[in-house]
Amino acid sequence: MPERIYNFSAGPAVLPEQVLRQAAIDIVNFQNKGMGLIEMSHRSKEFMAVAEECEQLTCELLGVPAGYKVLFLQGGASSQFFMIPMNLLKKDQVATYLNTGTWSKKAIKEAKLFGRIEVAYSSEDLNFTRVPRDDEYTVNPASEYLYFVSNNTIFGTQFQEMPGKDAMLISDMSSDIFSRPIDVSRFGLIYAGAQKNMGPAGVTVVIIREDLLERVDEAVPTMLKYKTHAKDDSMFNTPPCFAVYCVGRVMHWLKELGGVEAMADRNRKKAGILYEAIDSTDFYRGHAERESRSLMNVTFTLADKELEAAFIRDAAAQGFDGLKGHRSVGGCRASIYNAFPMEGVEKLVDFMAAFAKKHQ
Amino acid sequence: MPERIYNFSAGPAVLPEQVLRQAAIDIVNFQNKGMGLIEMSHRSKEFMAVAEECEQLTCELLGVPAGYKVLFLQGGASSQFFMIPMNLLKKDQVATYLNTGTWSKKAIKEAKLFGRIEVAYSSEDLNFTRVPRDDEYTVNPASEYLYFVSNNTIFGTQFQEMPGKDAMLISDMSSDIFSRPIDVSRFGLIYAGAQKNMGPAGVTVVIIREDLLERVDEAVPTMLKYKTHAKDDSMFNTPPCFAVYCVGRVMHWLKELGGVEAMADRNRKKAGILYEAIDSTDFYRGHAERESRSLMNVTFTLADKELEAAFIRDAAAQGFDGLKGHRSVGGCRASIYNAFPMEGVEKLVDFMAAFAKKHQ
Repeated sequence: MPERIYNFSAGPAVLPEQVLRQAAIDIVNFQNKGMGLIEMSHRSKEFMAVAEECEQLTCELLGVPAGYKVLFLQGGASSQFFMIPMNLLKKDQVATYLNTGTWSKKAIKEAKLFGRIEVAYSSEDLNFTRVPRDDEYTVNPASEYLYFVSNNTIFGTQFQEMPGKDAMLISDMSSDIFSRPIDVSRFGLIYAGAQKNMGPAGVTVVIIREDLLERVDEAVPTMLKYKTHAKDDSMFNTPPCFAVYCVGRVMHWLKELGGVEAMADRNRKKAGILYEAIDSTDFYRGHAERESRSLMNVTFTLADKELEAAFIRDAAAQGFDGLKGHRSVGGCRASIYNAFPMEGVEKLVDFMAAFAKKHQ
Repeated sequence: MPERIYNFSAGPAVLPEQVLRQAAIDIVNFQNKGMGLIEMSHRSKEFMAVAEECEQLTCELLGVPAGYKVLFLQGGASSQFFMIPMNLLKKDQVATYLNTGTWSKKAIKEAKLFGRIEVAYSSEDLNFTRVPRDDEYTVNPASEYLYFVSNNTIFGTQFQEMPGKDAMLISDMSSDIFSRPIDVSRFGLIYAGAQKNMGPAGVTVVIIREDLLERVDEAVPTMLKYKTHAKDDSMFNTPPCFAVYCVGRVMHWLKELGGVEAMADRNRKKAGILYEAIDSTDFYRGHAERESRSLMNVTFTLADKELEAAFIRDAAAQGFDGLKGHRSVGGCRASIYNAFPMEGVEKLVDFMAAFAKKHQ
């Protein structure tokens, strides 16, 4: 095997090589302090600086306005499915959800434990090949919020524009945060698990409008209240220090590259090359509808399962790893998050052309 | 600074150097697969093997009997304060707690949200200088369980023997798990945050008797049910892969050294040297009562705050880091977990003698 292969994994996913190499040094001896980063007290001034910088870079890169708080929590994005309604919704209150894939479905299930949930749109009948246009659903004006998943990792769909509705938006951006500019001021809460565009698994970023912190019922356990973590700058208990550190290093890398605008440009180019390859022949077929195509996860199928298996096997032999699609879609999926290199996309496209030629 | 200083931090804490050096390699290129460990899918066969081995070594080292399940969860030990009663207790049911420090107090607060909590013993009036003998408290026979913290990190006290009561035991062993043999069969549940004796912050091990998994109310959110994680071998959602990996490496190291029996022996020797140094002069005074002394966290005071500040400053200058006591005790604390080297204890004792001589 070469030192670095092309890793198309949907998550945990490829990270910038320079971040890995720096982590390898810091894990043994951080800033020449005579101990590794993961051995340091989270209250040490060294780690406090790491955590503060991570928060500050998140705000800077995403343009988080005043009146919002950035939290770094444990429990995975899956814990946000219940924490959001547990903190923001009362039994008789309404929230609107858009059902565009596996993760929104799970979020809807958990939210129903806490309030009246209205599903304003679902593409489940279409095996989640699309996300809705604004004119395809209405939001109950009594809704506390409108919840949607900005990018659907499994199905390869993405909201090209955020929903143009009056409601306060809440979004699971686990698989496309930091991939493009967003207007945070339209959101009550944004969250994302780290393991796609930010760092290793084990930390979830939550960006919450501060006035929402006080909505929670006092009987909710301390650790499940956003305000507990907001008050203590995500240091109420020991944070997942290594994951937070890595997220900070990834932000640095992103900033050096020009921030989310530059990244959005790069992502459009990368995905463009791949979709062009898919569209240029009948040999490959995109799973998602064109208007809903994701720039992060490119899903496609071949004529039959045998051909798909051969494609994945031959690709792996040439150093393209993780191209097998999720079982609910089948086929192939190329996840090309921020850290996935352009060169890898170009080489995959060459491979696809050669494979099609051979088997057509 | 030398390459490794003596790190007495209470947690996150010192880890075996060989684990750090291996992690530094694996983080860039794991098993020569052409990608780093933190970039790999948690469903890859490589990571699945890491997770399985971690579970298997936990069972082997602690002698976990059949009928128990080992889980690796996120959220820190602090999340167990509410998860335990949320999963095991109904509103009208009783549980007994022993209040021996900051962490038991927090656990009691959260448990009161879920059931009838009886505090059978408290050393709070004594600033938590001791843990109780069996004859100092009784357990209500109606109790679903008896909850205690086996080692109190902040105050430096430890149960020398587990409570000799008929009740099903539940214990927070965050700061002394794997430091000595335990009879798991007496426990309904044992848990521990990783960042003292097991690995980096970001994962919590929970050992639970399988029959308890079904007690939980269906209305509890999916992620907060132990049975969700038990069914999927802690892979219901993406686990904190790097932390799990490190815990596995630490177990390997512990096994090589002879397991928990050998470690208990080593821990007795290390703590013995330190307590002897404290007892041999009036210059240092132990915080904990002798019968309650911890082998993990050695707490002591000097005559006054100025002398303590000088001690901590001079010690730091000689490469002894993290000796400042917790603000609720003051004074000094030497945390000497499994991975803390004997040599460091011997050198600290020499320093203590010299410091006493100079200032007496």
